[in-house]
Amino acid sequence: LRVRPLHELRSHAPGEPAGIDHLANIDSAPPPGEVMVEMFDYDADHFEARTAGDLEDLEQFLFEDRFKSAKVRWIDVLGLHPYVVNRLRLRHGFHTLAAEDVLHVPQRPRVEVYDGHLFVVTHFLSIGERGLQAEQLSIFLFEDTVLSFQEFNRSSLAPLRARLEVAGTKLRKGGAGFLVYVMLDMVVDHCFPLLERFHDVLDDLEDEVMDSPKPAVLQKIQDVKRDLAAVRRVVWPTRDLLDQLIRGEHKNIGKSARVYLRDVQGHAVHLVDTIETLRELAGNLTDLYMSVNSNRMNETMKVLTIIASLFIPITFLAGVYGMNFEHMPELDDRWAYPSFWVVCLLVSAGLLTFFYRRGWLGGDG
Amino acid sequence: LRVRPLHELRSHAPGEPAGIDHLANIDSAPPPGEVMVEMFDYDADHFEARTAGDLEDLEQFLFEDRFKSAKVRWIDVLGLHPYVVNRLRLRHGFHTLAAEDVLHVPQRPRVEVYDGHLFVVTHFLSIGERGLQAEQLSIFLFEDTVLSFQEFNRSSLAPLRARLEVAGTKLRKGGAGFLVYVMLDMVVDHCFPLLERFHDVLDDLEDEVMDSPKPAVLQKIQDVKRDLAAVRRVVWPTRDLLDQLIRGEHKNIGKSARVYLRDVQGHAVHLVDTIETLRELAGNLTDLYMSVNSNRMNETMKVLTIIASLFIPITFLAGVYGMNFEHMPELDDRWAYPSFWVVCLLVSAGLLTFFYRRGWLGGDG
Amino acid sequence: LRVRPLHELRSHAPGEPAGIDHLANIDSAPPPGEVMVEMFDYDADHFEARTAGDLEDLEQFLFEDRFKSAKVRWIDVLGLHPYVVNRLRLRHGFHTLAAEDVLHVPQRPRVEVYDGHLFVVTHFLSIGERGLQAEQLSIFLFEDTVLSFQEFNRSSLAPLRARLEVAGTKLRKGGAGFLVYVMLDMVVDHCFPLLERFHDVLDDLEDEVMDSPKPAVLQKIQDVKRDLAAVRRVVWPTRDLLDQLIRGEHKNIGKSARVYLRDVQGHAVHLVDTIETLRELAGNLTDLYMSVNSNRMNETMKVLTIIASLFIPITFLAGVYGMNFEHMPELDDRWAYPSFWVVCLLVSAGLLTFFYRRGWLGGDG
Amino acid sequence: LRVRPLHELRSHAPGEPAGIDHLANIDSAPPPGEVMVEMFDYDADHFEARTAGDLEDLEQFLFEDRFKSAKVRWIDVLGLHPYVVNRLRLRHGFHTLAAEDVLHVPQRPRVEVYDGHLFVVTHFLSIGERGLQAEQLSIFLFEDTVLSFQEFNRSSLAPLRARLEVAGTKLRKGGAGFLVYVMLDMVVDHCFPLLERFHDVLDDLEDEVMDSPKPAVLQKIQDVKRDLAAVRRVVWPTRDLLDQLIRGEHKNIGKSARVYLRDVQGHAVHLVDTIETLRELAGNLTDLYMSVNSNRMNETMKVLTIIASLFIPITFLAGVYGMNFEHMPELDDRWAYPSFWVVCLLVSAGLLTFFYRRGWLGGDG
Amino acid sequence: LRVRPLHELRSHAPGEPAGIDHLANIDSAPPPGEVMVEMFDYDADHFEARTAGDLEDLEQFLFEDRFKSAKVRWIDVLGLHPYVVNRLRLRHGFHTLAAEDVLHVPQRPRVEVYDGHLFVVTHFLSIGERGLQAEQLSIFLFEDTVLSFQEFNRSSLAPLRARLEVAGTKLRKGGAGFLVYVMLDMVVDHCFPLLERFHDVLDDLEDEVMDSPKPAVLQKIQDVKRDLAAVRRVVWPTRDLLDQLIRGEHKNIGKSARVYLRDVQGHAVHLVDTIETLRELAGNLTDLYMSVNSNRMNETMKVLTIIASLFIPITFLAGVYGMNFEHMPELDDRWAYPSFWVVCLLVSAGLLTFFYRRGWLGGDG
Repeated sequence: LRVRPLHELRSHAPGEPAGIDHLANIDSAPPPGEVMVEMFDYDADHFEARTAGDLEDLEQFLFEDRFKSAKVRWIDVLGLHPYVVNRLRLRHGFHTLAAEDVLHVPQRPRVEVYDGHLFVVTHFLSIGERGLQAEQLSIFLFEDTVLSFQEFNRSSLAPLRARLEVAGTKLRKGGAGFLVYVMLDMVVDHCFPLLERFHDVLDDLEDEVMDSPKPAVLQKIQDVKRDLAAVRRVVWPTRDLLDQLIRGEHKNIGKSARVYLRDVQGHAVHLVDTIETLRELAGNLTDLYMSVNSNRMNETMKVLTIIASLFIPITFLAGVYGMNFEHMPELDDRWAYPSFWVVCLLVSAGLLTFFYRRGWLGGDG
Repeated sequence: LRVRPLHELRSHAPGEPAGIDHLANIDSAPPPGEVMVEMFDYDADHFEARTAGDLEDLEQFLFEDRFKSAKVRWIDVLGLHPYVVNRLRLRHGFHTLAAEDVLHVPQRPRVEVYDGHLFVVTHFLSIGERGLQAEQLSIFLFEDTVLSFQEFNRSSLAPLRARLEVAGTKLRKGGAGFLVYVMLDMVVDHCFPLLERFHDVLDDLEDEVMDSPKPAVLQKIQDVKRDLAAVRRVVWPTRDLLDQLIRGEHKNIGKSARVYLRDVQGHAVHLVDTIETLRELAGNLTDLYMSVNSNRMNETMKVLTIIASLFIPITFLAGVYGMNFEHMPELDDRWAYPSFWVVCLLVSAGLLTFFYRRGWLGGDG
Repeated sequence: LRVRPLHELRSHAPGEPAGIDHLANIDSAPPPGEVMVEMFDYDADHFEARTAGDLEDLEQFLFEDRFKSAKVRWIDVLGLHPYVVNRLRLRHGFHTLAAEDVLHVPQRPRVEVYDGHLFVVTHFLSIGERGLQAEQLSIFLFEDTVLSFQEFNRSSLAPLRARLEVAGTKLRKGGAGFLVYVMLDMVVDHCFPLLERFHDVLDDLEDEVMDSPKPAVLQKIQDVKRDLAAVRRVVWPTRDLLDQLIRGEHKNIGKSARVYLRDVQGHAVHLVDTIETLRELAGNLTDLYMSVNSNRMNETMKVLTIIASLFIPITFLAGVYGMNFEHMPELDDRWAYPSFWVVCLLVSAGLLTFFYRRGWLGGDG
Repeated sequence: LRVRPLHELRSHAPGEPAGIDHLANIDSAPPPGEVMVEMFDYDADHFEARTAGDLEDLEQFLFEDRFKSAKVRWIDVLGLHPYVVNRLRLRHGFHTLAAEDVLHVPQRPRVEVYDGHLFVVTHFLSIGERGLQAEQLSIFLFEDTVLSFQEFNRSSLAPLRARLEVAGTKLRKGGAGFLVYVMLDMVVDHCFPLLERFHDVLDDLEDEVMDSPKPAVLQKIQDVKRDLAAVRRVVWPTRDLLDQLIRGEHKNIGKSARVYLRDVQGHAVHLVDTIETLRELAGNLTDLYMSVNSNRMNETMKVLTIIASLFIPITFLAGVYGMNFEHMPELDDRWAYPSFWVVCLLVSAGLLTFFYRRGWLGGDG
Repeated sequence: LRVRPLHELRSHAPGEPAGIDHLANIDSAPPPGEVMVEMFDYDADHFEARTAGDLEDLEQFLFEDRFKSAKVRWIDVLGLHPYVVNRLRLRHGFHTLAAEDVLHVPQRPRVEVYDGHLFVVTHFLSIGERGLQAEQLSIFLFEDTVLSFQEFNRSSLAPLRARLEVAGTKLRKGGAGFLVYVMLDMVVDHCFPLLERFHDVLDDLEDEVMDSPKPAVLQKIQDVKRDLAAVRRVVWPTRDLLDQLIRGEHKNIGKSARVYLRDVQGHAVHLVDTIETLRELAGNLTDLYMSVNSNRMNETMKVLTIIASLFIPITFLAGVYGMNFEHMPELDDRWAYPSFWVVCLLVSAGLLTFFYRRGWLGGDG
């Protein structure tokens, strides 16, 4: 299983033809275990789940009859391999460029309209072991068939499979468009805990900045900014994607499914708002850092100034009476030494008063 | 009663179905006192207010005849509970997604158009004990019926209930659309004292920054910025919501009510302008902070430099004549010691002149 | 007469009904001298100016015949009082919300279209004793009648009254729409000297920053920024207002008046450009401030470093030969003392060379 | 000849009527030499240039027959005087507001559409002795006549006059619209060397900042920013102006001329891009300044810290053995004095090692 | 071969006529080797490549019959010379302004629509020896003919020539529009490795900033910013160009080619997103720089303060007992000297405790 940082760019090499026809391993099936193809036939009353056993003869599997003529068929592919994508392409007739976008992850979230079907690209965001990670979910929506391609994480869509098994739900009654809605709803809802997490991280960083403003903290802030920029690059186009699905009069998405998509879009707008706020908070932290640091330097300077200023004048005085001139009348005076101490105390008291008036002797200001 | 910070996000858990049908306590009425349902029937001449006694049999209450066939019915719900929302949904036939948005607070302010009714989400903003707080007000507007849902604060709409009791007012003569206008007017007018408060806080913070630029002050500025960002997230969409109500030709909102809504929208635009100005002022305070701080550091440095520079050269001189060399002709000179003091004074005077010319001896610059 | 800072917000209290019907003093005329109502009837050949003597019987005055059936009537009200506004409202039939906006100053500049008349809100900006001040000018434009309401400053429209007395001018020949154009032209032209003034203030502040960067200067810069934000909040909507008047096909504004309004709008666009430039200049001043300050600190540091570095090593040397060890061969050497001075001079020369090479001994860098 | 800084604002005084009818010297011709009126009649085959000799009888000159019925007439006015502008206005019938805009320079670049003619305002930008200067070029485009008004610089359009004399060129074959295109092309092309110049200035300033970051450098950067803002205020509207000319279906501008204008607009868009990049570079220079300055301060601090830290401990030691206590066993020790030096060297070596490890002894970091 | 920095501006001199007719060397062929003209005739089954031998008689070459009436002809010109461009212009009839834009590189990327053909300007970006460089690729698309002009780098389009030789590919089957798509695809795909490179450079710079924040690093950051601004100035208009090609219903670009162009545009949008993110990262590095620098200064200050504060008080004490007063009782005390050391240790311990409590003795904070 691969984990990719979000900033990675993916396209075919310059000059290479687009599409998947020329790919090397397009005619050889993947080793067992690398790709998993599941097929769900369902309507309000019927439900059957099948798993493709023999990937080398995938085509036959794909042409199997629907279970009791169930209304909707969902083919769920986990793992990306040119052979599998190409078999599905030949069976369902989607465009070679769309097939390429399924394989060359990550692509920008978007919806593309073809004759008879829609192609939707989107991303599941999550926090993995090596930081923020995204997994592309590519969806083809035909009139009563849905194809979905995921990279590695079977658990992302697990709740959907579980809900499908329950008869009589809106999901079972709804058509293919409703199934796609549920997937997009899950994609968007996945982002909320992520942003809560960012919120907590920023709160912690604010405390760290106030306590000890070291460059390491700033670097963490930079990392958060970078991650937020990455999340934003996924969420903004997802919002637009939903907008297109709602406004475009695609016949594959019924009117009632559109009401539900509007709900998802509301959440996506909320996400966008929240990301912008988080970015602002992260930006403010940099200001806070600089200011706490500058305050600390001021503190250091004050300590140095107070100590140096207190002792420099009286050290001079001590130096004077350590001189070896023949004729220094004060040296012989009986009260000279006590007087010296009195002068020292007076000078120090004067300076302390001066500093006190400036407010330098307060605790932290 | 719950108090929520504004940044909280709310959506159903990923994978869970949307809508309220699957909620746990949808079939059991809330304990007495947790939810309050009031019903107002009125037109220009008639007025009656009723309170639902028995929440377990809410449906019967909702089907009661209107008082003397009064034109408008307003059902005012305080406290959010799935059972109550669902009863009202069954009675008045609004969408399960709208019902979910009533319960899953906070939602983004917006208006949604359904066949036969409008669904409006907005927020009352106020300063509570634990800082800025928002309370969602969800409104359903049917042809001659208004449903409103509030979370906890009965006083927000109290003036409206009082005005309803007075016969012959425009409010009593107006239809359901006019009632919704009055609610939205109150929502917007609630923000004005809030922004005045922010203005005062920023003025106080400016004084604090000028007096003693401590990190704590900057943290307060950050808090204000955060609160302003939160208020903005509520007010901007409210402005758009009003725009939609005015431009969309919804038959539930008459032409005369639209004139009044235009007035509310004018206030909302004013709010948006003011928030932007406040944000700018808060941003400027950070600059002011950094500059005051840098001035203070400069001051500290000058004090240190002046004191150190005055005494370091003459301390050296005193050190010279404290040396124990055999052959130091000055030591025996009768006028050496007084000359030493003269030299010290001359050096100090020279340095003071130097500092004075640089303007370092002025009061605060 | 009231003078208001621009940031003040004004709306009715939350929950209070909109409109003016419920205002306390709507039925009692204001004391003499508080409000002044003038009436001008004119066309190309005729002109008459009348002043309402008895405010308590204002209605009769307003129903007086036009002087020789003059084409245009202009009613000019100075001072805002519910009684007067309401009398005019009853006579000319404008909306109660518009009447409220006349009284509840300041309102956002805008134009509102009613059946048969336009309602225009705008502001005269000027520099008063207590800083920037704005006075609302509210205008109702009927087919051949103009009502204008001002708060206190009779001199703002004085040139217009003077120009009206001259027969045969374009103003006298033009209709009611042309009169409104002249008012708006004056409103916009009033801003030019204001912005010139801001320009001069920023130039002065730049000099102050270069001479002595004290926090007080920065506070002045903040004040300018705040004032500019306020001016912007008035000028931007005025530009939009003019745009609406030109594009909207209002029959009260003839085609030729529209050409003139286009000219005013050109000036308003120029104002907007200039305000943006001024805001940028003010923002740059903050940068300049920080940089001058940081340069000054650098200077201070250099003085301290040079003086301290020059004397610290040789003070140590003097300390060494002030030690009381029994066996210090140098002490008895005849040339030891002169050698000591030579060493001091060499050390100092070396350090001065070092500083000179770093460019620290130059005048100001 | 006047030279104006770009930020100057120009409008009539508040309250004064718009247009030029009321101007003082509208009926008296300017003294000879102040205004120059030239007239060019041309088509593909014919060409004649005439200069108005007697400005007091300008009208007669303007009514002269075209040279051999040449297709296009261009009247080129250098110097702005109400009398001359008014004569031309009476002859060609343009609007009094346009006439005012010709005289009240500078106006915002724009195009205004009147019945039968277009009015175009634009500016020649150049670097004069007193910095950046702009000269307004006002153009009236009739069906086969072009009027152009310039302020003082006859050389700006000199290449155009020269090209007109060559028979058979596209310019001579083209109509009045093509002539206007050539003028606008020259206006835009004039900006390219200007921006190259800004580019060089910014490069020089970057070197200055790296060498010696004094406030004077920052002030120069501010000046560049200010100039760039001024250039932008001219170029942005010029781009829009060209857009309007191309899109608006003005019959005075033929389809082929529109192709050429599209080319000019391409250059204007390029200018806008370049200005934005230059503004960004100027903004970055401020950051560079602050950072170089802060580095220098760091350097100063390090020198002070190293020298002070090296000598302060050993100076203390020397002070200890300069004490006059009776009982100090070390004083009598034979190896005490050499040991003292050894200790001094060890302490210094230790501190130098400490500084070296921190990287403070490197050349510049 | 020329290499140009991206910021260079190019237009004809002010006043010079547009187009190429007046260029000096338009009638003399370039010396051999300077320009290379290749001609490719192909369709699904046929393919022939020819090279123009004799540039002086280019016209004849251009009029040669197509190889076996092949569907598409591509004329590929390497090297820009007025003579060659003009010959092609005469043969294929494109506009003189377009010809000028082919010669006067660099032009802004854009598409221009002429009757019967499209003119597309775009740039190959690459990192050359002297930094970022761009090479203009100008394309004319006729119904079944494509002309392309490049400046110097034959390898940019080499993969395309190689792919053309393979029979039966989509490229060979596609028409002229498909050929242009492949070129634009290569242009966009060329940018991906470039941006990866920028990403690496920024990562390295971040490390450098954390290690040693010298002005040289900041200058490198500025360079990256400058380069990014340049890349952006190329990529943004390329995205718009693709949008225009897709939306505009140009008959030279078939429906299937448009699907492919949509794919390219998706990549271009991805590039734009990435550039914005990189700009943000570069901007953040400046903040990081300032903060690391300010931390370092704080460190320096702390070292100075600690060392100075430790020794200044006890040096004073040593000075006191070095005084030569007659009457100093402590001097004769037997335990005075050890007591002195004890006091010194106590004072130092006190100060160290003070510093420790402030957290100044930690490693790096």
